[in-house]
Amino acid sequence: MTTYLSRIEKPSDLQALSLPEMEELAAEIRQRIIEVLSVNGGHLSSNLGVVELTLALHKCFRSPDDKFIFDVSHQTYPHKLLTGRNPLFPKIRQYKGLCGFAHPKESVHDHFFAGHAGTAFSLALGVAKTRDLEERNDHVIPILGDASLTCGLTLEALNNVPKNLKNFIAILNDNAMSISQNVGNIKNILSRLLSNPTSNKFYQEIQGILGPRLGKFGQKVTESLKNLVSPATFFEEFGLSYIGPIDGHDLGHLIDTFEALKNSPRPILLHVMTVKGKGMPIAIANPTPYHGVKPFDLCSGKFLPSPSSKPTFPKIFGRHILEMADRDPSVVCITPAMTAGSCLDDFIQKYPDRCIDVGIAEGHAVTYAGGVAHGKRMKVFACIYATFLQRAMDNLFQDVCMQELPVVFALDRSFISGPDGSTHHGIYDISFLNAMPNMIIAQPRNGQVLKELVESSTTWGRPSAIRYPNLETEESNAPLVHRSPGQAELLAPGKDILLIALGHTCSTALKVRELLLAKGIEAAVLDPVFVKPLDADLLLELLPQYRFAATIEEHSLSGGLGMILNDFLIRNQLRDVEMVNFGVPDLWVQFGSNASLMRELGLDAESIAARILQEYHDHRSVPERTEKAVL
Amino acid sequence: MTTYLSRIEKPSDLQALSLPEMEELAAEIRQRIIEVLSVNGGHLSSNLGVVELTLALHKCFRSPDDKFIFDVSHQTYPHKLLTGRNPLFPKIRQYKGLCGFAHPKESVHDHFFAGHAGTAFSLALGVAKTRDLEERNDHVIPILGDASLTCGLTLEALNNVPKNLKNFIAILNDNAMSISQNVGNIKNILSRLLSNPTSNKFYQEIQGILGPRLGKFGQKVTESLKNLVSPATFFEEFGLSYIGPIDGHDLGHLIDTFEALKNSPRPILLHVMTVKGKGMPIAIANPTPYHGVKPFDLCSGKFLPSPSSKPTFPKIFGRHILEMADRDPSVVCITPAMTAGSCLDDFIQKYPDRCIDVGIAEGHAVTYAGGVAHGKRMKVFACIYATFLQRAMDNLFQDVCMQELPVVFALDRSFISGPDGSTHHGIYDISFLNAMPNMIIAQPRNGQVLKELVESSTTWGRPSAIRYPNLETEESNAPLVHRSPGQAELLAPGKDILLIALGHTCSTALKVRELLLAKGIEAAVLDPVFVKPLDADLLLELLPQYRFAATIEEHSLSGGLGMILNDFLIRNQLRDVEMVNFGVPDLWVQFGSNASLMRELGLDAESIAARILQEYHDHRSVPERTEKAVL
Repeated sequence: MTTYLSRIEKPSDLQALSLPEMEELAAEIRQRIIEVLSVNGGHLSSNLGVVELTLALHKCFRSPDDKFIFDVSHQTYPHKLLTGRNPLFPKIRQYKGLCGFAHPKESVHDHFFAGHAGTAFSLALGVAKTRDLEERNDHVIPILGDASLTCGLTLEALNNVPKNLKNFIAILNDNAMSISQNVGNIKNILSRLLSNPTSNKFYQEIQGILGPRLGKFGQKVTESLKNLVSPATFFEEFGLSYIGPIDGHDLGHLIDTFEALKNSPRPILLHVMTVKGKGMPIAIANPTPYHGVKPFDLCSGKFLPSPSSKPTFPKIFGRHILEMADRDPSVVCITPAMTAGSCLDDFIQKYPDRCIDVGIAEGHAVTYAGGVAHGKRMKVFACIYATFLQRAMDNLFQDVCMQELPVVFALDRSFISGPDGSTHHGIYDISFLNAMPNMIIAQPRNGQVLKELVESSTTWGRPSAIRYPNLETEESNAPLVHRSPGQAELLAPGKDILLIALGHTCSTALKVRELLLAKGIEAAVLDPVFVKPLDADLLLELLPQYRFAATIEEHSLSGGLGMILNDFLIRNQLRDVEMVNFGVPDLWVQFGSNASLMRELGLDAESIAARILQEYHDHRSVPERTEKAVL
Repeated sequence: MTTYLSRIEKPSDLQALSLPEMEELAAEIRQRIIEVLSVNGGHLSSNLGVVELTLALHKCFRSPDDKFIFDVSHQTYPHKLLTGRNPLFPKIRQYKGLCGFAHPKESVHDHFFAGHAGTAFSLALGVAKTRDLEERNDHVIPILGDASLTCGLTLEALNNVPKNLKNFIAILNDNAMSISQNVGNIKNILSRLLSNPTSNKFYQEIQGILGPRLGKFGQKVTESLKNLVSPATFFEEFGLSYIGPIDGHDLGHLIDTFEALKNSPRPILLHVMTVKGKGMPIAIANPTPYHGVKPFDLCSGKFLPSPSSKPTFPKIFGRHILEMADRDPSVVCITPAMTAGSCLDDFIQKYPDRCIDVGIAEGHAVTYAGGVAHGKRMKVFACIYATFLQRAMDNLFQDVCMQELPVVFALDRSFISGPDGSTHHGIYDISFLNAMPNMIIAQPRNGQVLKELVESSTTWGRPSAIRYPNLETEESNAPLVHRSPGQAELLAPGKDILLIALGHTCSTALKVRELLLAKGIEAAVLDPVFVKPLDADLLLELLPQYRFAATIEEHSLSGGLGMILNDFLIRNQLRDVEMVNFGVPDLWVQFGSNASLMRELGLDAESIAARILQEYHDHRSVPERTEKAVL
């Protein structure tokens, strides 16, 4: 039904369109995004906000020679639609479909995988460095949101902008929001032009001195002063020529501006004001829920009711930590811009002094948590997605673990993060956490154990990580049991095989047990609850009773539970048990529904049972090792 | 021989001293530091620069209730001398002596272990948060160097300074240097007051408009403008009240300033100008070599000749990478402020376009390296100390490994970093690196293999880490052999035991071999060269030939070579070999000479041989597993 969009197979097709036609195209792109996302879900508001900006970029520059480097890159849907991916767009974020982020294997117009915020400026400086060493003249154009300015990485890059960097246009896409409302002082810097108390104060001061003497020159002085107190100062301090702010929905003005900025001998920051959710009133009115949407009704824009009423791990965490905060004024929560995702909205609203959103600044979140925990007076929870904790490994190392401070890391999204894909899977953290002396690593199999771990963790007195996925789970109203570090739990008996399953994969293990029982094999299921310390006593008692054991986890096999247990076997000379490890192999896992990815990885109950059956029988017939090395 | 210093047992003893007496004390402290460091080595210039500042802090505030939080904390020698540690000072950085950094287990006046830059501001905000929740009134005083301002972490913290934060005085100790000359745009912001082209330009502009009309009001306008274009703007944008700059060697003025700033209802940044090496002309004239000194002649200040003429791994790296850059214009090197430490001074001087120091900004260094490597046109080396790579794990993950870009990480200081202590040991990185798909991890046993790996790495086409220690080594003039990933090397034959030793510990293994030979046991020594990928074929061939094997490494046993090989044994059902792992156990290793620490950890040849002998004989007599679990 689209008039223009269906004709755009590559960016250069835009050249044939007039400005009014492009404006029509903008409307079609919005419609396309809204229609597909009403079914698939995905990043909605940010994409609606950059339609004209993306059109203008592709109109004025020659991608892929000129390189658009999108920060986070969840706002690349219009870019995908203009670079030959419109036909595939209904499969956005679906298994074997289009990635929800930039994906270099999908298109020559995507230059970097992205997903974690704040990298674009730094990458762009690197790309420009190579261009300059090769004496080429392409434009390098990082496109960053205002929230990326709170990332230390962006600020480190700003410190390194060369003075004479040519053909470099950083676009600041300012919608005054990250996922939630922006936090911190930088947002004040950006909004200064609109309401600038500093400059107002300064005007008064100057006028108080000069009084009527300013006369007709007053206007010009005022303009000069405005320059000094606009966001320009901030960026020009970093060597960038500041242009803006301009209206990010005025396509003609955007195109004129880009044309004027081409071939500049100095690096430029173009400040573009956009409206998150532009073109969809309900999304504009509710920016946080419409940042990343689940399926919604196309007419009303309202979210469809969830097919399940079960709570998720993060919801249970959010509710329980608030209950603890109600009871105990020393409970403090810190999150790097994830109040909504980590279900801390109620906490931050009720106790803004004790639930602190530091913005997209994971390193600071963790070091700050170390500061708050100093003296061990507060019970500090650092709520971070597992994949984002990778940005704070050194802070965890030096500012928490080495200080022996009892910060509890609530590691949300510790799993294969389905539709988001490889940048977001929380499947690498155990490797490093396990190397930290004194660290406790726990993982609950359900909501009930999650509450027990969260509650118990404040008594452990050591740096701790509680890993959990964003999946539905069970809880009960039963009284909470205290959990001591290194206390495992045998969930089901069985004489033939020992299954050791981490966290929510216990339910997979219990299904595997059923499948094996049907084949006459009795498998016990052990929930270690703790990866570190392991329940050494129980393992030493159990493992010698089995000729065959398996570990199951939704974590990389390199550094995860399987490797840790293999190490345990060798160190304790438990040589009689044959061990098979189920987990994520040494490759980049792509995106799709969790079920599809689990099947692909052989981590669904059926695949696991099938492989165990095979190995178990092989093992009984040929106890010798295989010839080909397993790495 | 000191009149005052010997009488100071605690900070409050300063109260009895007059200003002239304190100035005398300052001179004594300098003398003490110079004398001890002429023998021990250590951080010299930075400590000479903060003598008056530290005296003034302890005079005006009540430590430890008022909390001084030193960034990096290598500048805490005067603080240590004033807090009861003068008698122990001759053992600074020596085994079981005083730590060269802040160390909370050493004194109640040290609040955090530190060593990695940029954490103080963030920690201090956290400490102030707890203070405010508890409604206390102590002062929180982070003390940071100007180089910490290039750390993203400091900038993230600046974004989070609460407007109404009371009794919070951030001290910017500005000596215009990090270890080497500072880099980047922020240094220009700081130096603006001294030579401010922006403001000059602005004056001209304003004067051009107003001309003589300014009249007698000119002076006042000029002052107002000066405020706007001084470093004040930058800090006030972040909500800090800027005071300064003041002379950091004028004790009286420092004391008066601190007294005036006490009990402020708003957060303050006090800009203090200090001279690195103050009181020692040769150190002032040569700031980089005198930042961290080796023993020197007390009279002349000149460094004593090194007892050995052998080159170190970093020296060989620095020399070889420059040779490669001479030959190949696509060789690019990136370092986060470690040009001197990583021996890149000659490279950066000869090819400033291709050897890029980004300042203390490891995250940016790695992401920027990913940008430069984009398109695989450049041969990019990211030269980072292993311990500092922890600050860039996520950048390594997303911006290099996931992009499948062939950045080579030259991981200097991959070892127990002796006198620096627990913050600096490069012994945790393999755990995370091994979890990265496609990663290559190599470690040369000597300078010759280092050159071969560096040379070969540009042909591997994958993200690679080459780990090496700052130790002396051998090289030869033999032609360089090409090294393929996963190619191990058998260094010595032996039929009884297989020793698998990582990097420079191969020389330990060869010594162990000698010791065992004397006892009639023949040990083979295998250099894996690569931790990832392992030489699976050779291991599958060799391991079944032995009943007993051992791994040796200077890395944490959690996640290191030993764990990786244990995992290999289990995955490949190599059950007949008994394996013992020598490496760093799961605890914080303190500081001291490498030899002392190796002995303490049982990683010297004698300890290893003794334990192997014992296990080997136990193994032959009692092949059963031990009762107590080994974790």
